[in-house]
Amino acid sequence: MSIMTEAQIPAGTASDGAKAPAAGWPTPQPTYEGDFVLDGHLLLDCGRTLASPTLHYAVYGRLNAARDNAVLVCHALSGSAQVGVWWPELFAPGGLLRLEDDCVVCVNLLGSCYGSTGPGSVDPETGEVYGPDFPLVSIRDNVQAQARLMDSLGIRNLRLVLGGSIGGMQALEWAIVNPERVERAAIIAVAPLSAMGLALNHLQRKAIQQDPDWAAGHYLPQRPPRRGLALARQIAMLSYKAAPLFDERFGRNPNRNGEDPRGLDDLGGGLIGGRFDIAGYLDHQGQRFIDRFDANAYLAILRTMDTWDPAHGYPSQAEAYRRIRACLTFVGISSDWLFPPDSVRQFAYTIRAAGVQADYREMTTDHGHDAFLAEQAELVRLLQ
Amino acid sequence: MSIMTEAQIPAGTASDGAKAPAAGWPTPQPTYEGDFVLDGHLLLDCGRTLASPTLHYAVYGRLNAARDNAVLVCHALSGSAQVGVWWPELFAPGGLLRLEDDCVVCVNLLGSCYGSTGPGSVDPETGEVYGPDFPLVSIRDNVQAQARLMDSLGIRNLRLVLGGSIGGMQALEWAIVNPERVERAAIIAVAPLSAMGLALNHLQRKAIQQDPDWAAGHYLPQRPPRRGLALARQIAMLSYKAAPLFDERFGRNPNRNGEDPRGLDDLGGGLIGGRFDIAGYLDHQGQRFIDRFDANAYLAILRTMDTWDPAHGYPSQAEAYRRIRACLTFVGISSDWLFPPDSVRQFAYTIRAAGVQADYREMTTDHGHDAFLAEQAELVRLLQ
Repeated sequence: MSIMTEAQIPAGTASDGAKAPAAGWPTPQPTYEGDFVLDGHLLLDCGRTLASPTLHYAVYGRLNAARDNAVLVCHALSGSAQVGVWWPELFAPGGLLRLEDDCVVCVNLLGSCYGSTGPGSVDPETGEVYGPDFPLVSIRDNVQAQARLMDSLGIRNLRLVLGGSIGGMQALEWAIVNPERVERAAIIAVAPLSAMGLALNHLQRKAIQQDPDWAAGHYLPQRPPRRGLALARQIAMLSYKAAPLFDERFGRNPNRNGEDPRGLDDLGGGLIGGRFDIAGYLDHQGQRFIDRFDANAYLAILRTMDTWDPAHGYPSQAEAYRRIRACLTFVGISSDWLFPPDSVRQFAYTIRAAGVQADYREMTTDHGHDAFLAEQAELVRLLQ
Repeated sequence: MSIMTEAQIPAGTASDGAKAPAAGWPTPQPTYEGDFVLDGHLLLDCGRTLASPTLHYAVYGRLNAARDNAVLVCHALSGSAQVGVWWPELFAPGGLLRLEDDCVVCVNLLGSCYGSTGPGSVDPETGEVYGPDFPLVSIRDNVQAQARLMDSLGIRNLRLVLGGSIGGMQALEWAIVNPERVERAAIIAVAPLSAMGLALNHLQRKAIQQDPDWAAGHYLPQRPPRRGLALARQIAMLSYKAAPLFDERFGRNPNRNGEDPRGLDDLGGGLIGGRFDIAGYLDHQGQRFIDRFDANAYLAILRTMDTWDPAHGYPSQAEAYRRIRACLTFVGISSDWLFPPDSVRQFAYTIRAAGVQADYREMTTDHGHDAFLAEQAELVRLLQ
């Protein structure tokens, strides 16, 4: 069992919006956390292979004798296998998941820096770190690898697969690729990425690439592209939150540390000036993120997200969706502008039109995309 | 009369969305374009002064004998005095402005790189380029300087002041600061910048600062921070356009030059990959921009925009607005998420509540903030 250091523990998946569980019950603890090494090669959608990749995963609760109580939680971009840390309220008394009854599994994405094989891992075939040579791993590749982990755990059927954002991509992909194994899937705040979403990811990618410390992906561990990664995270934060939330929290206030937006700057001149409060907040978020995440891992997962097309490899969208046997619940977030609720609803209806049992529900909140992490109690209420 | 080279001619103010005028009538030509040098010092809101600053301006048409036909057009962030180039359809037959009847003046913003004094100018008091020592110039400072230019042109009253985005900030400020001189003002797609707007500007600023070629503002003319400025422009482009427009134009298509978003990248690996069409478009926009704009000028005007508070220096908002004598027309753009129409409408109603004659109109379009440049005919129709 590998233990993460405190600095590595991600506070949330999309952003740091995850809340500590409400008083009165403890943070859920995994019954097991460790690595599964796939035997042989994982053939990827892109045509390349990963040799004996590792999946880092956590299990909460225990598989019952009937083996019918397994739940798979899929994390978002910068999340980890430790769903008890970033989605604690799903385990709250009366919540969606029950440690006494459920066997909850969460698997770190391939490409990530939280234990599964990623760009920072050593390629067993070359003995060298993958770095920028790390291949494109699709959502489907992840699902296929996760399925092999489930096999090894003796889990044939999943009573529920759920996730938000890129976690929701995995949940739907599970229902398409392994239709006989999924009873229900909850697909939260996601649809295939729009042109605006692709644009946001492109600019995040550029922010990292333009940091000289990125060194075309060959940066030294002691000198990662911190400024580029921080800027990438900050661009992402704009899309995770909503304008009314920013207005309410920060407005046009000067930074709470006392900087003067009308004053001189550190250079003694007038081009930069003191920060507003929202700027101080974003800089803080950037700093927090570079202490816990890796730039190449970020790039790898951006591509996993960008290239997701659930119909890829099927003759048509309808034929892909017709494979689904699970009951699907789609959740849109009213103030989400990264995956606008209309696009999630439309996505649900398109899939329903293929004959799938799919319903759409909506969280009404000013929080934006991050609401699935920041307003967990409301999400639980909606999913029950 | 100074003439801009072709490379310097800005195609638009917010973005490059400006259209060539419709066939059948020529691009309006200025009757005069040149420089006005303010006598002595311009005392700035920030407490510093600019010594003998230059205002570069263009005049279209001629002042009549009654001197009652003057119109002031205020440009947006990256615009120029050449309103005939970036807002040609306002001069269309039957349009808002008539070269035969009106005397249209447009003044380049202080801080800009299109002829008025900015960070790239020489400070006459030191004999050196301002660079990062260029002071914060407020919207009000600009208006005060423009008023002195109007005095020198013999223009006492303006029958109309209009502008979009930061141009609209100037138009409203004119009505507050010089209430006896403005008959009408059209304030388009603007309100005081929200926290999201401040956030977007902060990240653009960081993109420039993080480019090593920025050199704390002391870059060499032959080695400006091109990559940082391009990224800043690309972040801004997201806020100038709207998601449905991007979906319609680019969708999830691969870049039209044939790149493969699922393929290998130039590094031979999988972290970057081929671009989607929206990414190719954004990169192209970044490239176009760095050929025509200066990074320090961009930083200077971002701050002018960030710090605008029309009530600054007055006992209250209401007392600032009660000064206004002009009839105001506010225009919101339905798909604008930089200055959402609700915030423009609310701004108009707040000012009306102070006893000002102010109406609100809305452009219905998928184009986003840029619509005031990209859909000029519709804007003209709305303003008539």
